[in-house]
Amino acid sequence: MSYQAPIKDMQFVMNELADLSNISKLPGYEDASPGLVQAVLEEAARFNQEVLAPLNVVGDQQPSTWKDGVVTTTPGFKEAFHQFSKAGWQGVLHPQEFGGQGLPKLVATPCTEMLNAANLSFALCPLLTDGAVEALLTAGSDAQRALYVPKLLSGEWTGTMNLTEPQAGSDLALVRTRAERAGDGTYRLFGTKIFITFGEHDMAENIVHLVLARTPDAPPGVKGISLFIVPKFNVDAEGKLGARNDVHCVSIEHKLGIKASPTAVLQFGDNGGATGYLVGEENRGLEYMFIMMNAARFAVGMQGVAVAERAYQHAVAYARDRVQSRPVDGASRDAVTIIHHPDVKRMLMTMRALTEGARALAYVAAAQADIAHHATDAAAAKRAQAVYEFLVPIVKGWSTEMSLEVTSLGVQVHGGMGFIEETGAAQYYRDARILPIYEGTTAIQANDLIGRKTLRDGGAVARALCEQIMATENELRASGGVGQSVADRLAKGREALSIVVDYVVANTQDNANAVFAGSVPYLKLAGIVLGGWQMGRALLAAQKLRDQDTSFHDAKIGTARFFADHILTQAPGLAQSITEGADSALALSEAQF
Amino acid sequence: MSYQAPIKDMQFVMNELADLSNISKLPGYEDASPGLVQAVLEEAARFNQEVLAPLNVVGDQQPSTWKDGVVTTTPGFKEAFHQFSKAGWQGVLHPQEFGGQGLPKLVATPCTEMLNAANLSFALCPLLTDGAVEALLTAGSDAQRALYVPKLLSGEWTGTMNLTEPQAGSDLALVRTRAERAGDGTYRLFGTKIFITFGEHDMAENIVHLVLARTPDAPPGVKGISLFIVPKFNVDAEGKLGARNDVHCVSIEHKLGIKASPTAVLQFGDNGGATGYLVGEENRGLEYMFIMMNAARFAVGMQGVAVAERAYQHAVAYARDRVQSRPVDGASRDAVTIIHHPDVKRMLMTMRALTEGARALAYVAAAQADIAHHATDAAAAKRAQAVYEFLVPIVKGWSTEMSLEVTSLGVQVHGGMGFIEETGAAQYYRDARILPIYEGTTAIQANDLIGRKTLRDGGAVARALCEQIMATENELRASGGVGQSVADRLAKGREALSIVVDYVVANTQDNANAVFAGSVPYLKLAGIVLGGWQMGRALLAAQKLRDQDTSFHDAKIGTARFFADHILTQAPGLAQSITEGADSALALSEAQF
Repeated sequence: MSYQAPIKDMQFVMNELADLSNISKLPGYEDASPGLVQAVLEEAARFNQEVLAPLNVVGDQQPSTWKDGVVTTTPGFKEAFHQFSKAGWQGVLHPQEFGGQGLPKLVATPCTEMLNAANLSFALCPLLTDGAVEALLTAGSDAQRALYVPKLLSGEWTGTMNLTEPQAGSDLALVRTRAERAGDGTYRLFGTKIFITFGEHDMAENIVHLVLARTPDAPPGVKGISLFIVPKFNVDAEGKLGARNDVHCVSIEHKLGIKASPTAVLQFGDNGGATGYLVGEENRGLEYMFIMMNAARFAVGMQGVAVAERAYQHAVAYARDRVQSRPVDGASRDAVTIIHHPDVKRMLMTMRALTEGARALAYVAAAQADIAHHATDAAAAKRAQAVYEFLVPIVKGWSTEMSLEVTSLGVQVHGGMGFIEETGAAQYYRDARILPIYEGTTAIQANDLIGRKTLRDGGAVARALCEQIMATENELRASGGVGQSVADRLAKGREALSIVVDYVVANTQDNANAVFAGSVPYLKLAGIVLGGWQMGRALLAAQKLRDQDTSFHDAKIGTARFFADHILTQAPGLAQSITEGADSALALSEAQF
Repeated sequence: MSYQAPIKDMQFVMNELADLSNISKLPGYEDASPGLVQAVLEEAARFNQEVLAPLNVVGDQQPSTWKDGVVTTTPGFKEAFHQFSKAGWQGVLHPQEFGGQGLPKLVATPCTEMLNAANLSFALCPLLTDGAVEALLTAGSDAQRALYVPKLLSGEWTGTMNLTEPQAGSDLALVRTRAERAGDGTYRLFGTKIFITFGEHDMAENIVHLVLARTPDAPPGVKGISLFIVPKFNVDAEGKLGARNDVHCVSIEHKLGIKASPTAVLQFGDNGGATGYLVGEENRGLEYMFIMMNAARFAVGMQGVAVAERAYQHAVAYARDRVQSRPVDGASRDAVTIIHHPDVKRMLMTMRALTEGARALAYVAAAQADIAHHATDAAAAKRAQAVYEFLVPIVKGWSTEMSLEVTSLGVQVHGGMGFIEETGAAQYYRDARILPIYEGTTAIQANDLIGRKTLRDGGAVARALCEQIMATENELRASGGVGQSVADRLAKGREALSIVVDYVVANTQDNANAVFAGSVPYLKLAGIVLGGWQMGRALLAAQKLRDQDTSFHDAKIGTARFFADHILTQAPGLAQSITEGADSALALSEAQF
């Protein structure tokens, strides 16, 4: 099943919901003209459809393999990565001075979506490299930036994030990897890191590991973690490769999905210590790592949207083709293609509505990031930054959780054929399952949403968003017709969200367990309501544009209504579970389970 | 991870909710004394825990293989099947005159649950054999019953159901396999059947295929389908094996899960025709096949409960063991086992509540089947049969759909380890995915719920159940304390179900598409409300028994409250989607997807 980048849908969101015209007026983004953006999207579509999408199933059937410390990636990956790098796709988002294209995040985001829809496993290598670039640009020295960033953007080298250890997953306070001062300004690292995505591979000549470790005199917990660059091959000041560093891949994991992406166990320092270079200051590693993680979390959210879109397209193609059973209303005496059966429509609409809602929310978040970094009005930039940071855990958590539902429905639409691996639907179901786990589980995102994003400002950003939603409700009411019922459902959703925000702000201090028992439902509720808000805005925009392309815009209106009728309607029940359900969630003792 | 049969939970449901003492008073079930039932459950637990549970992961890693028409099952399966048969487990439910144990379905059902929890793939062979036995007992001739049933119960032979063809999945009207009269009372069959579970294997000396096919002069559609016995090896009147019949396994499928269970493509008649023996009368095959299917559908519902229980146990064990992060309430400065984190508790409670609710509903349904078959009061038997038939699509559809959520949460509880195949959680996630598909997809169950089970009696059974729920609400209110809030939520759920039943009855005739767009949500709503009802009843029973075993019964009370607070609260939103959401579900044309 081939992938077709949904450029028209993407542009609808970019133009009508995320206001690309405003972003391209920001200083530094003047190049992002409609014509250039169109060209970028079309070229990204062509590359991802033709080169990477066909390699997706190959990667599932011929995963990366490990032998004697060497990882050989799926046939075709190395060549595809060369093409990817040569075409400049690694640099879309990054500064021109280091060889990037310096485009807005709003433009880079659909490119990210296409890349991941085409090939989730392959896309992880650029995703992690992006994170490494972000960290170096923010926290690295001038020399480090000059040495590493251009090579990372050119694809000569790739980047990794080394956080997890066997005893330290969600809890980085437990990191044990040691970094001893060598006396020459460098460090020697010792320890084991697990779950390192593309931690070893054959697609580039060097790998730049960014590694969390503790110096000998560091304080305990997360305040004693530093960040180090540990290249696979040592490099001189000009970037010429030297000897192999003392970091080795001792195995890769046998996984449920994303099988082409090698998940490495890396051993540091078995032969005297891996040479590491401190990034920024000692003991501020977690802070720097969060820079990488926030970029990576947003990107993983896009992975959710991407795999959902791919699963949707696969299911629609099958539903158009498969003939089975007469219509339930007796409209035909013959069996029809299953896309005409009401339940199949409901499943496809659910897939479509969730995907479109999550895409819209993510793109709108991306635009906020662009405003935050480029607006000349400092207050506007600050507001946008706060909104972006509020949205990141929701984009990550909700988009990935919904991708489980969408890819599962994708299997279901195929009936028995969905369970047969050759059909391809099952791969999306397996691949998607990692998304709510890595780069911070949904619970970790929800903790972030509660702690840093809701409590810290007393719920100010959340309430400001609720006020914007009310404005949309008013516009929907004024638009009449179908807008009216969408406004009603959106109002119920917004009220539910508002009640929960008040509850979180009022109770976390005194009853943390109760509030955190509802953390993931809060995140889900926020996703549904904010996604539903964007769908309401989409409806308004589609009504205005309807005369230009009626079929396309009517589909937008229908999908927005479906989201309101079938997804926003879950909001009041969620709010009730959150505000009234903590006692029963916490009722059982360990022994009672 | 070992499996522990939850005998205490099972007995709580059997005794307190399904009224085993009443069932064992029915004529023919007098043997089912408390002592005997206890012994059967304990022996089933021992066998399944010790023999079959350890083979579950073996089957995933070393699936059945096909070579030159011969299927070799997973190492250990053949020996285990021999033990299973020798111990008489195939016959638990079936008449003593054919070698069975003749126990009530209420007693057989926990045995089925244990078997499937221990090893879903293995359990499919007995599951299909049960279906074949049911069909032969109901529709076969005396000679056929005498010839085949004892061999099927002894495990010398096994049974299959041959319905699906490449063009005929959910839609059996499209069946093309031909059955030509041979002139000697037998038939010659020609055609291809796919997705035949244990259609070829090495665990028994013969396989009794029950095959849907058309005679040359049969009317088109489902009214022209007949049912045939096609043994793998021909048998004489004494059951001695003769020559190989003309039915051959040309391949087995490469599947997402249940890999140890061979899913065969069977070719009939490549060498002159497979000899078939008509069951019952020509053209009544679908009717007979429904006998098998109803038994099989209930059993697949139990597979959902079973895999959910197994996934729950696996997740609890990990959550008790894994140390990560400090408590959110600051109760400890050290990291604790994750079972103490509120979100992990919420996930485990969700898994537990859904599993217990679905188990309770299924066992209660099983008791209705026993009453239907053995009550001396004809009116009571008829009522029970109607309730059982109403519940079968819900047990099948809801239990299997919830098993997707439960097994997915099971992966999530494990974090990154959940995505690693060696952990084992991923197998349940993969295995469960077939359950809402085979033996009739959830949409097919939902069609049955609407058409045969709700419309045909004008909603009478559904409304009678709603009245019983009201009685439980009153009891809960009278019980005071936590019962009050559970009563309130149950009432909201029951009102939602009642509204939807009225809607279905009122609108299907004139607006079938609209009603069927809400068919699966209706099934889900019915599952939630009826499951929640059983949990409410469990709460009442646990309150009464609390003094005897406080910790156990408090856990029942806590789980019932959780079900009400977190699952029943979804009911009003579902009702709204069903009654007001059809327009948007059907808004898009084929071209607009």
